[in-house]
Amino acid sequence: MRPVNLYPELDTPTLVVDLDVVEANIAEMAEVARRQGVRLRPHTKTHKMPRLAHLQLAAGAAGITCAKLGEAEVMADAGCTDILIAYPLWGDLKLRRLRELRERARVRVSLDSFEVAEGLGALGRDSGSPVEILVEVDTGHHRLGLPPGRPTADLVRRIAAIAGVEVIGLLTHGGHAYRSRTPEELEVAARREGTDLVETAELCAREGITLAEISVGSTPTARHVAGVAGVTEVRPGTYVFNDAAMMRLGVATESTVAARVVSTVVSRPGPDRFVVDAGTKCLTSDGAGTPDWIVAAGRPDVHFEFLTEEHGVGRLEPSGGRPDALAIGDRLAILPSHVCPVINLFDSACGVRGGVVTETLVVAGRGKVR
Amino acid sequence: MRPVNLYPELDTPTLVVDLDVVEANIAEMAEVARRQGVRLRPHTKTHKMPRLAHLQLAAGAAGITCAKLGEAEVMADAGCTDILIAYPLWGDLKLRRLRELRERARVRVSLDSFEVAEGLGALGRDSGSPVEILVEVDTGHHRLGLPPGRPTADLVRRIAAIAGVEVIGLLTHGGHAYRSRTPEELEVAARREGTDLVETAELCAREGITLAEISVGSTPTARHVAGVAGVTEVRPGTYVFNDAAMMRLGVATESTVAARVVSTVVSRPGPDRFVVDAGTKCLTSDGAGTPDWIVAAGRPDVHFEFLTEEHGVGRLEPSGGRPDALAIGDRLAILPSHVCPVINLFDSACGVRGGVVTETLVVAGRGKVR
Repeated sequence: MRPVNLYPELDTPTLVVDLDVVEANIAEMAEVARRQGVRLRPHTKTHKMPRLAHLQLAAGAAGITCAKLGEAEVMADAGCTDILIAYPLWGDLKLRRLRELRERARVRVSLDSFEVAEGLGALGRDSGSPVEILVEVDTGHHRLGLPPGRPTADLVRRIAAIAGVEVIGLLTHGGHAYRSRTPEELEVAARREGTDLVETAELCAREGITLAEISVGSTPTARHVAGVAGVTEVRPGTYVFNDAAMMRLGVATESTVAARVVSTVVSRPGPDRFVVDAGTKCLTSDGAGTPDWIVAAGRPDVHFEFLTEEHGVGRLEPSGGRPDALAIGDRLAILPSHVCPVINLFDSACGVRGGVVTETLVVAGRGKVR
Repeated sequence: MRPVNLYPELDTPTLVVDLDVVEANIAEMAEVARRQGVRLRPHTKTHKMPRLAHLQLAAGAAGITCAKLGEAEVMADAGCTDILIAYPLWGDLKLRRLRELRERARVRVSLDSFEVAEGLGALGRDSGSPVEILVEVDTGHHRLGLPPGRPTADLVRRIAAIAGVEVIGLLTHGGHAYRSRTPEELEVAARREGTDLVETAELCAREGITLAEISVGSTPTARHVAGVAGVTEVRPGTYVFNDAAMMRLGVATESTVAARVVSTVVSRPGPDRFVVDAGTKCLTSDGAGTPDWIVAAGRPDVHFEFLTEEHGVGRLEPSGGRPDALAIGDRLAILPSHVCPVINLFDSACGVRGGVVTETLVVAGRGKVR
C-alpha cells in the first residue's frame, strides 16, 4: 500500500499523460467507428493539444471538432484542415475571424437559430462560398437546440432558404447521458441521439431537403449510437484521456485513464486526515460532492473529502490509517472527475511512457474561450 | 430591462475589472485595518496581478500573502519585498526555489507539521538566516492545522527547538465561515479565528515561547476578527473584487463587485431559455447547484440553471419572457460565484473606468500551481 515516489524529478502538482494509454484509446475508438462504418471527428476540447489531434487523424479520424473559434485557430495553425466548430458563431468580430480561418481550412459550424444562420449567410455570400452548417437538435440535454421532429424541420427549412449557407446535416450533444445511473439508461439515451436525428432528417427529406450528415456521439454514447442506422459521424472527446466520470459510467477503467495530476502530501494533521498540494486550480470543482468524484490511482484506501484552490483534503480508511500508510512527501496520482477543464488549467503536460517522461505536451488551446 | 450592449468593441466572453470599484474596495479594507490597529497583508491569489498588489501596498498594506511559491516568485519579480507564503513548502525542489526567493524578498512561510519545519530548518541553517514561520491552526475549517490549545502549543514547542527556523506566530484560515447561514453565525466563526489563536499564543507564552504575530481573517471574517484583542494581522483576498458568494454573506453588494465576465447570448431555444457563450471555462463550477450562484448584473429576471464548459444556460422569469427581453447578440455581465479561480482562467482582464476600457491587466500569476 506504500505509494511509489512517483516521478521524483518533477515538481508537483503536475499533469502527467501516459502516451501508451492515449494511443490505445485512440486506436480503440477508431476501430469502433471503422467497424460501424461511420466517420470519427474527435472533439479536441479534451486535449487542446495539436500533437494529439495529429495522432487522432493519423489513426483515421476524418477531421476534428472544436468548441470555440479560438481552439479551431490553434488547430489550423498546427495543420488541421477539416474542422467542425460545434458552436453558434455570432457577431462581426467572430465572423471576421471565421472568414480568415476558412481561407486555410474547411470549416463547418453548428447552430440552432435563424439569427446566427443569417450572419453566416452574409459571410458566405461575401466570400463567394457558402458556409456549411449543421443544425443542432435538443435530444434531452436542454442546452442548445430545438426539439427533434417538427420544430427542427421548420427551422431547417427557414435556414435552408438563406443564401450563403448550406445546411449539410443535423447535430446533437446528448450531454444528459452523462447522468445515466445504469448501463441500460445510458444505452437508451445514446440510441435516442441517433434515432431522433435520423427521424428528423427523414421528415426534412419528405419535404425536399436532403441532410447528408447525422453527427452525434460523446465518449459515453459513441459506442452505442455509432450503430444506429443513418448515423454518419461520431464526435467523442474524453475517450482520449478518460476520467473518473467515465469510470463511473462503465466506459473506462483506472488502466484506461491516461491523464493524472501527480500531487504531494504536504500535511497529515490527524491519523485519518491528509492534505495534498493539488486543489481546484489543478482539478476544478467539476463533480465535487459526489462520492469519490476524484480517485487516487492504486489507493482504494484513500478518499478525497473536499478541495479548495490549492488543497486536496482527504481521509484514509481505518485500515490505511497506520502512520506509514501515507506520509508527508508521499505522492498520489489523482484521476480527475472531468478531464477536459483540467487540461485547460495547465500550459503543458508531461508525456510519459512506462513511467518515464519522454516529451512535453503543449496545451496550445488552453484558455481559448473566444 | 433591455440590456445595454456592453463593451461592443470587445469580443466575448471576456473578463472586465472596474478599477474605480477596485480602488474603493482596497481603500475600505485598508481603513478597517487602520481603525483596528492591525496590519493588512492581502492575499493576492484573488487577483494574481502585480498591478493590483502595488495598489494594495500603496494603500498601506504591510506586505502580501501568496498561495504558492510560484505566485510569490511572480510578485517578487514585480518588486514585492515582503511576502507570506501561506502554504507548507516541502521537498528539495521547492526549498531550492525558496532559497533563491529569500535573496530578493523577506519571506515567511506557514506550516502545520514538524516534518515541513525540519526541511525549512535545514535551509535556514545552510543559508545562515533562520526561516520565519507561522504555525497554522485549525479553527474549524478542518483543512490544515492542529486544533488550538494544547495540540498546537506542543507542536510549536517541538518546532521552536529546530535550529534554522524562527516561530514568529500563529496563523489560521477560517474557511468554514464561508458556509455561515446568518450574520450572527459568521461573526461567531470570525471572532473564534482570533480568540482561538490568541488563547493558544497565551498558552505558549506561559511555557516560555513568545509569538508576536497572530495572523487571521478572510474577506467575510476580517472586519469582525480585526477587532479581537491580540490579533496583529489580517489577510483578506476576495475583497479586492468581491463576488456573488460575498454578496450572499452580506459583505458585498452588486455595486462593490468589480470583476465580471461579459458574455453574449448565442441561443434562445425557447421563450424562457437562453444560452450565453460563457461556461465553466470562464466561471468555474464553484458554487454550482446553489440558487443564483452566479448573477447577471442588473438583470433580476435572469437566472442561470447550469453551466457546461462553453455554455451558460439560463431561464428568464415569465415577466421577462417577452421576445425582446433577451435576444441573440445581447450581452450579460456575469458576477462569478467565486472570483479567485475565475481570474486564474484568463491571461488578462480589461481594466475599465466608467464603462470605458482604460488598460490591460495581466494575470501574471495565472496557473502558478507549484
